[in-house]
Amino acid sequence: MISNTPPAPYYAVIFTNIRTPGDQGYAEMAQKMDDLARQQPGYLGHESARDKLGITVSYWESREAITAWKNENQHRLAQKAGREKWYQHFKIRICKVESDYAF
Amino acid sequence: MISNTPPAPYYAVIFTNIRTPGDQGYAEMAQKMDDLARQQPGYLGHESARDKLGITVSYWESREAITAWKNENQHRLAQKAGREKWYQHFKIRICKVESDYAF
Repeated sequence: MISNTPPAPYYAVIFTNIRTPGDQGYAEMAQKMDDLARQQPGYLGHESARDKLGITVSYWESREAITAWKNENQHRLAQKAGREKWYQHFKIRICKVESDYAF
Repeated sequence: MISNTPPAPYYAVIFTNIRTPGDQGYAEMAQKMDDLARQQPGYLGHESARDKLGITVSYWESREAITAWKNENQHRLAQKAGREKWYQHFKIRICKVESDYAF
């Protein structure tokens, strides 16, 4: 559940979003993208939670890995559908994780 | 809901956590810390969601602002109670937001 990421530095993509009403194929595509992300080079893990707001944070070895995932063909189709029907609003933040600690 | 942060760069603290069962004073303290965080120098906003996992991302002008908030007296007491009774596990990641975009 909490990603077991390697020692910093590494990268994070914080994806904060507000869904449109209804499923409209969202759950199936979300599962597909979850499976596909895990297969990408440089993928380190991801964490998700949703109540009124959805937050998904994915972790990556490098910015190059993030860019490659953004440009992956099936993922591009999912992003297009996201803008067209699944999300009212979203914000994506690309971050360098400089330090971390756990309990 | 989605924080209206200024142009990058700025900083993010990703706080991922798994709660213990029951409230045990958590909701009240969470509200207090929410109010107190907003008053701190360098605070830019925060976003939260919880289902099985809780994710709170707070945004800050600088690492110095993050350190000052970590060391704030009432917040230190809340962190201690968090370790003692509210959280089974948590991970905190300090990040530099290098770029962002919204829809």
